[in-house]
Amino acid sequence: MAESPKPRVLVVHGPNLDRLGSREKEIYGDMSLADLNEEIRAVAAKLGLDCDIFQSNAEGDLVSKINSSGDAFDFLVINPGAYTHTSHALQDAIRASSLPAIEVHLSNIGAREPFRRHSVIAPACLGSIAGFGTFSYLMALEMALSLLEVREE
Amino acid sequence: MAESPKPRVLVVHGPNLDRLGSREKEIYGDMSLADLNEEIRAVAAKLGLDCDIFQSNAEGDLVSKINSSGDAFDFLVINPGAYTHTSHALQDAIRASSLPAIEVHLSNIGAREPFRRHSVIAPACLGSIAGFGTFSYLMALEMALSLLEVREE
Amino acid sequence: MAESPKPRVLVVHGPNLDRLGSREKEIYGDMSLADLNEEIRAVAAKLGLDCDIFQSNAEGDLVSKINSSGDAFDFLVINPGAYTHTSHALQDAIRASSLPAIEVHLSNIGAREPFRRHSVIAPACLGSIAGFGTFSYLMALEMALSLLEVREE
Amino acid sequence: MAESPKPRVLVVHGPNLDRLGSREKEIYGDMSLADLNEEIRAVAAKLGLDCDIFQSNAEGDLVSKINSSGDAFDFLVINPGAYTHTSHALQDAIRASSLPAIEVHLSNIGAREPFRRHSVIAPACLGSIAGFGTFSYLMALEMALSLLEVREE
Amino acid sequence: MAESPKPRVLVVHGPNLDRLGSREKEIYGDMSLADLNEEIRAVAAKLGLDCDIFQSNAEGDLVSKINSSGDAFDFLVINPGAYTHTSHALQDAIRASSLPAIEVHLSNIGAREPFRRHSVIAPACLGSIAGFGTFSYLMALEMALSLLEVREE
Amino acid sequence: MAESPKPRVLVVHGPNLDRLGSREKEIYGDMSLADLNEEIRAVAAKLGLDCDIFQSNAEGDLVSKINSSGDAFDFLVINPGAYTHTSHALQDAIRASSLPAIEVHLSNIGAREPFRRHSVIAPACLGSIAGFGTFSYLMALEMALSLLEVREE
Amino acid sequence: MAESPKPRVLVVHGPNLDRLGSREKEIYGDMSLADLNEEIRAVAAKLGLDCDIFQSNAEGDLVSKINSSGDAFDFLVINPGAYTHTSHALQDAIRASSLPAIEVHLSNIGAREPFRRHSVIAPACLGSIAGFGTFSYLMALEMALSLLEVREE
Amino acid sequence: MAESPKPRVLVVHGPNLDRLGSREKEIYGDMSLADLNEEIRAVAAKLGLDCDIFQSNAEGDLVSKINSSGDAFDFLVINPGAYTHTSHALQDAIRASSLPAIEVHLSNIGAREPFRRHSVIAPACLGSIAGFGTFSYLMALEMALSLLEVREE
Amino acid sequence: MAESPKPRVLVVHGPNLDRLGSREKEIYGDMSLADLNEEIRAVAAKLGLDCDIFQSNAEGDLVSKINSSGDAFDFLVINPGAYTHTSHALQDAIRASSLPAIEVHLSNIGAREPFRRHSVIAPACLGSIAGFGTFSYLMALEMALSLLEVREE
Amino acid sequence: MAESPKPRVLVVHGPNLDRLGSREKEIYGDMSLADLNEEIRAVAAKLGLDCDIFQSNAEGDLVSKINSSGDAFDFLVINPGAYTHTSHALQDAIRASSLPAIEVHLSNIGAREPFRRHSVIAPACLGSIAGFGTFSYLMALEMALSLLEVREE
Amino acid sequence: MAESPKPRVLVVHGPNLDRLGSREKEIYGDMSLADLNEEIRAVAAKLGLDCDIFQSNAEGDLVSKINSSGDAFDFLVINPGAYTHTSHALQDAIRASSLPAIEVHLSNIGAREPFRRHSVIAPACLGSIAGFGTFSYLMALEMALSLLEVREE
Amino acid sequence: MAESPKPRVLVVHGPNLDRLGSREKEIYGDMSLADLNEEIRAVAAKLGLDCDIFQSNAEGDLVSKINSSGDAFDFLVINPGAYTHTSHALQDAIRASSLPAIEVHLSNIGAREPFRRHSVIAPACLGSIAGFGTFSYLMALEMALSLLEVREE
Repeated sequence: MAESPKPRVLVVHGPNLDRLGSREKEIYGDMSLADLNEEIRAVAAKLGLDCDIFQSNAEGDLVSKINSSGDAFDFLVINPGAYTHTSHALQDAIRASSLPAIEVHLSNIGAREPFRRHSVIAPACLGSIAGFGTFSYLMALEMALSLLEVREE
Repeated sequence: MAESPKPRVLVVHGPNLDRLGSREKEIYGDMSLADLNEEIRAVAAKLGLDCDIFQSNAEGDLVSKINSSGDAFDFLVINPGAYTHTSHALQDAIRASSLPAIEVHLSNIGAREPFRRHSVIAPACLGSIAGFGTFSYLMALEMALSLLEVREE
Repeated sequence: MAESPKPRVLVVHGPNLDRLGSREKEIYGDMSLADLNEEIRAVAAKLGLDCDIFQSNAEGDLVSKINSSGDAFDFLVINPGAYTHTSHALQDAIRASSLPAIEVHLSNIGAREPFRRHSVIAPACLGSIAGFGTFSYLMALEMALSLLEVREE
Repeated sequence: MAESPKPRVLVVHGPNLDRLGSREKEIYGDMSLADLNEEIRAVAAKLGLDCDIFQSNAEGDLVSKINSSGDAFDFLVINPGAYTHTSHALQDAIRASSLPAIEVHLSNIGAREPFRRHSVIAPACLGSIAGFGTFSYLMALEMALSLLEVREE
Repeated sequence: MAESPKPRVLVVHGPNLDRLGSREKEIYGDMSLADLNEEIRAVAAKLGLDCDIFQSNAEGDLVSKINSSGDAFDFLVINPGAYTHTSHALQDAIRASSLPAIEVHLSNIGAREPFRRHSVIAPACLGSIAGFGTFSYLMALEMALSLLEVREE
Repeated sequence: MAESPKPRVLVVHGPNLDRLGSREKEIYGDMSLADLNEEIRAVAAKLGLDCDIFQSNAEGDLVSKINSSGDAFDFLVINPGAYTHTSHALQDAIRASSLPAIEVHLSNIGAREPFRRHSVIAPACLGSIAGFGTFSYLMALEMALSLLEVREE
Repeated sequence: MAESPKPRVLVVHGPNLDRLGSREKEIYGDMSLADLNEEIRAVAAKLGLDCDIFQSNAEGDLVSKINSSGDAFDFLVINPGAYTHTSHALQDAIRASSLPAIEVHLSNIGAREPFRRHSVIAPACLGSIAGFGTFSYLMALEMALSLLEVREE
Repeated sequence: MAESPKPRVLVVHGPNLDRLGSREKEIYGDMSLADLNEEIRAVAAKLGLDCDIFQSNAEGDLVSKINSSGDAFDFLVINPGAYTHTSHALQDAIRASSLPAIEVHLSNIGAREPFRRHSVIAPACLGSIAGFGTFSYLMALEMALSLLEVREE
Repeated sequence: MAESPKPRVLVVHGPNLDRLGSREKEIYGDMSLADLNEEIRAVAAKLGLDCDIFQSNAEGDLVSKINSSGDAFDFLVINPGAYTHTSHALQDAIRASSLPAIEVHLSNIGAREPFRRHSVIAPACLGSIAGFGTFSYLMALEMALSLLEVREE
Repeated sequence: MAESPKPRVLVVHGPNLDRLGSREKEIYGDMSLADLNEEIRAVAAKLGLDCDIFQSNAEGDLVSKINSSGDAFDFLVINPGAYTHTSHALQDAIRASSLPAIEVHLSNIGAREPFRRHSVIAPACLGSIAGFGTFSYLMALEMALSLLEVREE
Repeated sequence: MAESPKPRVLVVHGPNLDRLGSREKEIYGDMSLADLNEEIRAVAAKLGLDCDIFQSNAEGDLVSKINSSGDAFDFLVINPGAYTHTSHALQDAIRASSLPAIEVHLSNIGAREPFRRHSVIAPACLGSIAGFGTFSYLMALEMALSLLEVREE
Repeated sequence: MAESPKPRVLVVHGPNLDRLGSREKEIYGDMSLADLNEEIRAVAAKLGLDCDIFQSNAEGDLVSKINSSGDAFDFLVINPGAYTHTSHALQDAIRASSLPAIEVHLSNIGAREPFRRHSVIAPACLGSIAGFGTFSYLMALEMALSLLEVREE
């Protein structure tokens, strides 16, 4: 008897997340991106999710990743980093992909400098989770599963 | 041998949440506040959290609740409703309480009318979870537990 | 043979209307709130409307009144006073009530200080009548009847 | 014994009201300008008002009408249409005429696009009635009579 | 021979002042509200002033207090707390009361976050005293006496 | 066998286009309005379009032209001149006419003074062509034909 | 021997100047437009200037007057009235006419309501004279003569 | 006898145009980018133009393409996509290339969300064509030819 | 028989007018300040005015001059130079002096850089004359005489 | 036994305070600067304060006074007059002096024209007292003494 | 005896600097990027600095370069080109690198179009040098050496 | 054989630089103005520059210095201090002097409070150097020499 396939989640890290854990630890914690990704994969596995992870500092690459492989996924978890506040192209890409998406942030962007308090990505997302460090991602995976199950029903 | 006491979480619902489930269901879902509170209590129990719930349509009552009973709690989960965007008094109360706090919203406020995209509460909170309907609260409870455990260590 | 019941109108007075007639008479006239309410009741009676009147200086009480008793009425006439310009909570409450509503003002708010020229309540109302002193309320009652009759047809 | 003359009211329709009833009926209803004018005249007659009606799409003609014939009237009822939001000339003309004036709108301009929420005409008017379709005019006539009677006393 | 009655001063504390002395002591000092009130009463007694004190976290209660009992006083000293920056209702209430009023603040609001630098209460007050901690109130009492004496003459 | 009638296009020139060719030739070229109109008629003829041309410096006349004769046409090509940036009345007229419309400009308004970069007419039009001198009109005719043919199919 | 012809000056009065002298005399004085024009003609005659005067309440007519007869004049004196603050079309017309122009105002617009402090006409004029009542025009004629003489040299 | 070489046109597609035809068809139509490019090549061939086409989601690649190969072309047709509204780098690149350029858009950006109504690219372009779907490109090619012929003369 | 004394006019030149005639002649002409002052004195003499002239680059000196000697004059003619746009102190000084004042400018400030289009001095002046080079001053003297004569009457 | 020296207070009056008492008495009262200074000296003597007073209309002199003699004082009381709203230099000087400072105003600047509601001096001061006429200064002296005594302890 | 290693400086050129010397020479001079780099290397050699140079038109590549190789350098000299005004990602990268950095510009950006006057990069840099053409870079190298020597001590 | 004369540089220090070295050393360093001036003179001598230094806290004196002695110099190095952000008079003076000028700042003004990020002086200067403490001046002298030599050639 054929098993139903695992839901596939694309996790996208935006600019400067390659530096995670080595700088400004008081804001972003001391876990490296490799460690975070490992944890993301572990939690995804536990939740029964297929999970692909992508990082780029380039707005265009983030757009291209979503455009070219969006169809291969059921859900998008994205930390748009500093592009959160200016990238209309990323907003268009997420909307064009029709993927249900969650915007995540390590820090509570609503509590930082004024320019960080506004997200141009939000209108293309279902929800946002911000301020819980690397937990923000893990919670997003759990939530992705819940939302996909709701849809299923 | 004395058991360590359960962490106590105060869950605060702001204005108009008393109408939950009876109106604008396409935005807020069809669960009533009573149902939501029951679910919050169930999840809290499962997580080993002591949980108190408070709802008011009055800014002053929300402030007073936090001011008068804040010391009795270890964590605050608050959905400030429409006061999110204007209540400096609520921000001051949360900050004055020194409680670690999570701001939750049923809808993704960053994707709605412009006036709903800015939170004056955020600077007094650790993080925010928005857009997942009643799940936003449940996730906040889980996160509260995780953050209290991290602190403990 | 059963008579069709009278339409029920809720008339809500916002902050500072309890002071009507005793201060700033050059702007608001010299009729007291009690006198105004009497006149409202008389006109309602003449028009065949059941009419309930509520005044509060508290934003939360105004919200609660609409939330808790909105279902008992067919129409809302509201003078939101100084909350006209800032109360998103009141706007949400009116919208949540699904009541057809008319916003009334004693003075012509469009002709006063800049902050009084913008109503955040308007988007939840059918129309607005401003600048005719206590007549604004009376006209709103007449209009309520006309609109309810139109609906009936 | 000489009868006191009837109060004379000038009703002014601004730009695009010549299209009333043939387009965007979901906003403006399906009554034509001719029909509306007939109804205005009927109500005026019933109220004992002498009533003159003028429509123009041209800002300058509206200004000229008020400037040249303002002295022949006791009251002004004006729907400035899209000039509501920009015409300082019209505001100046109404003020110069010294006529008591009521600003009327078919739709509730406070609930529409941002540019429609601000009236530069308001500071020259006694009050405003908006959002009741063609009723807005009829109510304005009633109110005009009431206000003229108050003055008389 | 009848003595002239003592001038009566109403001292109003706005939101979060119930927390005075227990939190953010580096900004607001470590005197509790009870202690402050005692000191206010002592200074008032010394100055020959009858003094009533009221605290509420609710905008509506502050408005109601002024509206209902304003006539019983000769002077108002008010610290509007976080409502300083948004409460048009409070401004209207003070103006409606016709009481000479002094706005006081514990901290120098002109030197804090941008949103705290603007007072919508100021236009209804004679003057303001800010930045001197609990001294701000005491100085206001002295000033109230001086201003009442000037009026007397 | 009856031939299908030619599509009818209304070409509207706004303020100051009567001066075309005699002034500021470095911006607008040296073709007169008469010459331009002749060329418009020639191209229209070649394309099999019935074409009527109207110029006025008066906002009200432009509105009236569209209101009174809009039903007689299948397409509108309009250069609103300096009214592009302020005329809500013209926007309303185009929308009320239900005509498919193209906004044309001789110069590239997006590259000129800031006030010329924003069109309040655009929301009522299908598209815009700007910066190609008199070619802008000719291209608009071609495009009108293409769009009408698409519709036909 | 042929005399050199008199310089020709076009004097343009904008909206509401037809009401001069009959209303708001405390701002605009009690001289009627007819009286002012007579005085303008007298001063022009004395200065050896040929002078034509035009008044309209219509923006389009003002534009058309300048467009159609601008070539017949050597100088323009214009009081744009309330169009001063919004009419890009008038600015374009003056610029297109290449006439040296002086902007005049009866009142000191820089000292009135905020919206009257900005002139969109100014960039098309040589200079401006404001605040001297009807003298503003007379002074402009003198200045026109001086500037034409300077040019001549 | 040497033939004059064909004019060379560079057609540049910005971010998200790689998704053309597969998403949001109600806005962008259902033609794929490959189909559009084929049509562009066909029209170019018919017009006697040499045509090169480039698409990238990356701002930097768009800049580099123009910088590195701009000298090889006589004309630029560019749809800057979402970079239209923010990319000063692209504006600088176009200006630095000295290529005559036309900005094209599939949708009428002046009629969409506020942030889409402003182009920072426009000041570096001759003109713009927006709102005609894939026709916008084809018209731009025709116009490019016309403008190059005018230059030639 | 005692002659009535000559009216006394204070002419004040603000910052950088000491450089008149030696720099930026295309804007300010090539007359030096000494020459201008001579001409001012000549015209004043011809008009029967007593005239004192003061120049300073220092805001404080301009304020002091008006404060200390204002009582000795009947009229003020002031070119506030670059302080026009920022000096509240100068505005206060002119208002405090109660002198009727005319603001003059060599260039047409309404046609220059945006920051030069707003005068904070205007609200303290009767009128303004701008854009006529050194004529601006001479015209102001004439106007001063006229206005003083009007007052006399 | 050596007595501890008296605290030294520098009182600084900004622009236009030299006119005190002779103009705009309805705002600033009718006490002259000399009288005010006498009263300041009397109160200072009574409080046991050494007091130096300085007035200048020049921003630079105010800065220089604070810079050159700041070290000779223990406290600064400053009424920055119209420089309150613009003088970054004065703010820098006060901050550089490290003197505890009180900003005083005769009128309640928060209740006057918009530009007077914002103080750029405030961030360099301990507190502010505004609206009590000459009492503002006297109260500041008392407060200075209190604050110096607190520091002493 | 081991020599101390040479300080290593990373020089980063942002978008469009690959076009240096071939376009807009009146602004940027006629030196090519190759020539500039050669000169940078010569000056670095003379100063005893190890110098690496990187150019990219892509925001993401600039971020990646700093992120991936920042640790290999002691100093950063960066001309962010048009990304100066919008790239929060670049600001974050510089800050994350902890490198002392100097922002350089060929032109004086404070004297150009408004959008070029604001740098979002500045808050992450020690200082900025702008307006000296290619000298800006050379001066930055000298300054880098001085600052590194100061640190050494 | 006659030597060519040394280039003459005017170095101008604005407000509060007289306090250099005695206050806020963490921002401005601990070198006094006298020490800085000595160093400026030493470097100037070494570079073969004649150098004059001027400091004033008064905007007017800075303007006067440039106006009166500008012709005696070949170059201007100016630190406008807090006048950087508001002094149109200083901008006018520098422009009027026609001196090539460099704006210097001790701190990196682009990284400080928002009001310090904008220079109204910049448009009158060749370039700016900010953030290098007293080095900023020395570098400006070197740059002055280089630029004068370039001009010479």
